[in-house]
Amino acid sequence: MKTHIYKTRVRYAEVDQMGVVYYGNYLAYLESARTGLLRDEGYSYAEMEKAGLFLPVVECNIKYKGSARYDDEILVETTIGYIRHASIEFKYTVRAPNGNAIVIARTVHPIVDRDWKIKSVPERIRALLSPFIEN
Amino acid sequence: MKTHIYKTRVRYAEVDQMGVVYYGNYLAYLESARTGLLRDEGYSYAEMEKAGLFLPVVECNIKYKGSARYDDEILVETTIGYIRHASIEFKYTVRAPNGNAIVIARTVHPIVDRDWKIKSVPERIRALLSPFIEN
Amino acid sequence: MKTHIYKTRVRYAEVDQMGVVYYGNYLAYLESARTGLLRDEGYSYAEMEKAGLFLPVVECNIKYKGSARYDDEILVETTIGYIRHASIEFKYTVRAPNGNAIVIARTVHPIVDRDWKIKSVPERIRALLSPFIEN
Amino acid sequence: MKTHIYKTRVRYAEVDQMGVVYYGNYLAYLESARTGLLRDEGYSYAEMEKAGLFLPVVECNIKYKGSARYDDEILVETTIGYIRHASIEFKYTVRAPNGNAIVIARTVHPIVDRDWKIKSVPERIRALLSPFIEN
Repeated sequence: MKTHIYKTRVRYAEVDQMGVVYYGNYLAYLESARTGLLRDEGYSYAEMEKAGLFLPVVECNIKYKGSARYDDEILVETTIGYIRHASIEFKYTVRAPNGNAIVIARTVHPIVDRDWKIKSVPERIRALLSPFIEN
Repeated sequence: MKTHIYKTRVRYAEVDQMGVVYYGNYLAYLESARTGLLRDEGYSYAEMEKAGLFLPVVECNIKYKGSARYDDEILVETTIGYIRHASIEFKYTVRAPNGNAIVIARTVHPIVDRDWKIKSVPERIRALLSPFIEN
Repeated sequence: MKTHIYKTRVRYAEVDQMGVVYYGNYLAYLESARTGLLRDEGYSYAEMEKAGLFLPVVECNIKYKGSARYDDEILVETTIGYIRHASIEFKYTVRAPNGNAIVIARTVHPIVDRDWKIKSVPERIRALLSPFIEN
Repeated sequence: MKTHIYKTRVRYAEVDQMGVVYYGNYLAYLESARTGLLRDEGYSYAEMEKAGLFLPVVECNIKYKGSARYDDEILVETTIGYIRHASIEFKYTVRAPNGNAIVIARTVHPIVDRDWKIKSVPERIRALLSPFIEN
């Protein structure tokens, strides 16, 4: 099973007055992680959108177990929970510089076209994501 | 049972290139809704923080059922799922201008002091939130 | 001369670890202020966009003279500096709850169509904004 | 004269419904660029803050000459305009992947302590930034 690694550095703009990353900002990190996975596997989300395919989020569950601070270089490990006929589950662990898991999350995405009509998961995307499916 | 209503207008900054509110931005609306509830019941979150009490988020679950667009005036209905010894569950329904529920969410919060030590829920907060508990 | 007033309450998400509004977030307040002016005068920016007209920003100057904190209800006073053949200058003063001017800003906007081609300022917009021109 | 280069990739969260980076989000890129310069020269902003020194922004001027799109890898070139007794001017050029300058900006910063009292620019910071002063 493959795991994708995305790294980013916490910006000043992303931290709140408790000195930790604002809870809503993790969703942007998750998005960068999952689109980073697609890009690194050879099919960028920008390219998908040009082809008229979109991966909106219909569900997002997050557990906050710790916190990241300004200037921390954090990493997001991404795997795939499942690929169904018309939806995909991404799973994430966000880690602080010391390796601690600070956020555990999952997002669920249908594949839709420009008119938000559900499409079956294209073979190319299925093939690309399958190595990341958790056993 | 009481339900708190928070209204806000979607900013241009909050919409993505699909023309709908970016999925992570709903978490800021939820925060404004729950702190709005506290303020309207006479105990602002700013005042709580000055007293050394904080309500960090340890869990957040969201289902996206529709979408809001730029300039939409949306509303967030907030109730309380439970108040336990040391944690509180807030529940939210975000509605589009036509009344449709576009987001259903819950967040779970412990009460902590400045050193992130768990505190029992103060009587004042329990009394203030109890009328919002779902039957 | 008319002055438009826009009010908003500072969100937790908008404050940084110094406990004050992050400097970049004022630009979203300015945007809400200027589109609020248009809406209150009967021509919402959403409506303008549907008509194929856009007001992108080509210049923004800001002086930060003070700061707003979490939960502060701030107000933005907006006037018009000038309306030229194909561009408009908006001027803003952001005030803290005690009335102090904390931010002084201006933005300059051409009017463009969907293909980013410069258009002359439509008569309807000129008429609507003229009462706000500073003497 | 040295120029500092900061690279980042545009997130979905940062793009508006015109398909380009929202004008306010460039200020977070500028912040990452200037704190990146400090870090790369051996004195991170996080370390400065621990030492009780802060660089708030008192002025920011931006010209928008083009636009970046989702997934673009953009770069920010940073130099120093001046170092005075108690303030510093940073200058920035943001470039699109094709090399075009899309944003030209400057920010002005006093150095303050925890009580927002103005301090003279410490020798260490002066020495570190001097090679970046424009001729």
